[in-house]
Amino acid sequence: MMKPSIVIQTDFGNGGGGAMTGVIKTIDPSLDVFQANHNIEKFNVREAARNLNHHVPYWPSGTVFVSVVDPGVGTARRASVAKLKNGSYVVTPDNGALTLLLENPGVEAIRIIDETKNRLKGTEKVSIFHGRDLFAYCAGKLAAGIIDFEGVGEAYPVSEIVTYDALGYEVEKGMVKGYLTDMMRTFGNLETSIPVSAGKEAGFELGEKVHVIIKNQDEVKVDLTIPFEASFGWVKEGEEVVYNSSDGVIGVGINLGNFIEKYGLDFGKDWTITITKEETK
Amino acid sequence: MMKPSIVIQTDFGNGGGGAMTGVIKTIDPSLDVFQANHNIEKFNVREAARNLNHHVPYWPSGTVFVSVVDPGVGTARRASVAKLKNGSYVVTPDNGALTLLLENPGVEAIRIIDETKNRLKGTEKVSIFHGRDLFAYCAGKLAAGIIDFEGVGEAYPVSEIVTYDALGYEVEKGMVKGYLTDMMRTFGNLETSIPVSAGKEAGFELGEKVHVIIKNQDEVKVDLTIPFEASFGWVKEGEEVVYNSSDGVIGVGINLGNFIEKYGLDFGKDWTITITKEETK
Amino acid sequence: MMKPSIVIQTDFGNGGGGAMTGVIKTIDPSLDVFQANHNIEKFNVREAARNLNHHVPYWPSGTVFVSVVDPGVGTARRASVAKLKNGSYVVTPDNGALTLLLENPGVEAIRIIDETKNRLKGTEKVSIFHGRDLFAYCAGKLAAGIIDFEGVGEAYPVSEIVTYDALGYEVEKGMVKGYLTDMMRTFGNLETSIPVSAGKEAGFELGEKVHVIIKNQDEVKVDLTIPFEASFGWVKEGEEVVYNSSDGVIGVGINLGNFIEKYGLDFGKDWTITITKEETK
Repeated sequence: MMKPSIVIQTDFGNGGGGAMTGVIKTIDPSLDVFQANHNIEKFNVREAARNLNHHVPYWPSGTVFVSVVDPGVGTARRASVAKLKNGSYVVTPDNGALTLLLENPGVEAIRIIDETKNRLKGTEKVSIFHGRDLFAYCAGKLAAGIIDFEGVGEAYPVSEIVTYDALGYEVEKGMVKGYLTDMMRTFGNLETSIPVSAGKEAGFELGEKVHVIIKNQDEVKVDLTIPFEASFGWVKEGEEVVYNSSDGVIGVGINLGNFIEKYGLDFGKDWTITITKEETK
Repeated sequence: MMKPSIVIQTDFGNGGGGAMTGVIKTIDPSLDVFQANHNIEKFNVREAARNLNHHVPYWPSGTVFVSVVDPGVGTARRASVAKLKNGSYVVTPDNGALTLLLENPGVEAIRIIDETKNRLKGTEKVSIFHGRDLFAYCAGKLAAGIIDFEGVGEAYPVSEIVTYDALGYEVEKGMVKGYLTDMMRTFGNLETSIPVSAGKEAGFELGEKVHVIIKNQDEVKVDLTIPFEASFGWVKEGEEVVYNSSDGVIGVGINLGNFIEKYGLDFGKDWTITITKEETK
Repeated sequence: MMKPSIVIQTDFGNGGGGAMTGVIKTIDPSLDVFQANHNIEKFNVREAARNLNHHVPYWPSGTVFVSVVDPGVGTARRASVAKLKNGSYVVTPDNGALTLLLENPGVEAIRIIDETKNRLKGTEKVSIFHGRDLFAYCAGKLAAGIIDFEGVGEAYPVSEIVTYDALGYEVEKGMVKGYLTDMMRTFGNLETSIPVSAGKEAGFELGEKVHVIIKNQDEVKVDLTIPFEASFGWVKEGEEVVYNSSDGVIGVGINLGNFIEKYGLDFGKDWTITITKEETK
């Protein structure tokens, strides 16, 4: 049987992943190692969680994800391996990175990495580079089949997994309300906490106009009536649009333009969005 | 027989390609997937074309290139697979990205991707992420041998392939004239639309001086008499030079310096260059 | 037997490595090619050397490293392959990139690449892209087993390898002195030329305070009494710390902050650091 791929994401910046991948290839040179992203914002656990959420559903069951965004490296936070309900694994500091995966596809079990067995020999005195010495090394042994999930270390309750507050949403007839949760920096568009299904539930239909209000705390930053479409390509260049994003949530953007820069937006718990069905007058 | 590699380029920015590669690995985990570049300028179809032009000649015949620079995602532009005359394939929106490959190595045939067969199941309602749901998925099936080229979808005439205006050149005895067509941003040097062979035809010889005039429309930005050499390493640090670039065209740069910044240059149809053989006086 | 991986680093910027990897895959499509870093600072041979130093110890014996940071491309510097004492190879312009590897793991032998045999056919007239036409091509033949080390070209004495001045250190009871040699730009912390072992020899113990003075030539830039810990995670957010870095040398940083920016630091031979054991008063 083909061994699973290892998929690595970190906040190490350009050129990260080289020593980690070498450690894995030293364990088993036949392992396939993919560099998903080394440019996660430094110490941004929420961005790590969103990136895992974007990737996990599209890789084969059994894939071993390694996520190293670790503000607490060298301290007492747990270094863990989660087994997901779709059969894949995530090797990560247990610091919030698993928040979104807990909902979908769900976490079946979690184990703390036993450093006496699953740490690169000769690095016991180095506290700084767990990505290489602990997470990559343990992921390599797991993907190579040298250890199984039980061999990672002791299990602890899934209910103890560290989470950050997820940003919710509300839906009623003709209205959805939620938060700005993510930005696609390259394209200048935003994602919200509102699932596409909530838009359907509210009765929005493709091609009609909706009224969008975005606030930073109490300050209104956007107040627009714009089309709701399947994609931002359905409006003219330079026009705003609400659309169904590729991650299954509602997005907002400008076709061939930068919505974030135009309105000076950011995302997080201080940024709310309300979308109302425009009445026929 | 070894399956062909898949080579991906996009304008998604750092960390692009993760979900696309997962979709491919889910189709066939043994496929080799190479991330050529996710930092093509946003929506810049010409840069996509130049990147394909740089890479295609150096990969084995049969390689499946995927290029997703797609200002029209979610609209009516054709999503296509071109079969090149060297035996390789390019999976791309047909929006100009094939312009340079039409000349060299040439396009043998082109087919539109049949979305009813070659689209990731469950994504029919998502219009925004064709890179993942359509282009990567179809490329994976093709490289895995699950479909052959005929299985992509219906053929259409090569003459209908969308192109942008190519930038030409003129050559006469002792003179070549063309456009600035590309910049190597990291190194600060420029490429032109003038083939190395045109320099030979004009009678330029390595080691001699040439007179270079660069204009932005009618404004002269560079007026210099500098050496024509095999490489910018042949002049002293900080000196300008005209040279034979690695892409088979004439280039201009500064050894260990930044020609673009020094003279405030850019490239495209408004930027002409004239190179004249310096007469022995 | 599994063929060795090829590990590429260059200063080509984002998207570098595509044509080089294609050349290698054309030689042997089964070769595993890893892109370690294409964002080394332009022409910075010291950074190339440090990157090799970070990666070489963690990859399997026999790995073929390709390093193309080549201020002298197209001129008379030697294009070489070094065989390291750990069994791995480095294909590089011999311009200082091997400096740190000469000490550890050591260079067993070095050969100049014979361009008549080990250069991509059809590129003899191109002087500008040795990364693709010479280094990648020769590395591919070596990793594929088409040539052995003797087949690279003529040997020359290891004593002729080009080196830059290494930055040393001093140690005495209660004091170490050395240079700032590297920065982790993403995290804002610094590495020094002082091995962890020198700190032990000086009598530093984890958890105690040390007195740190950093100078740019004669100007004092940092004068602090701060903890010496196993990792920067052992101090509170925003606090400075001296720690044992993952590369086996002493580092300085701020937990969850940017030490380099706070104090306006850089690295190299003009930047000294003195660390003194704080006396119990």
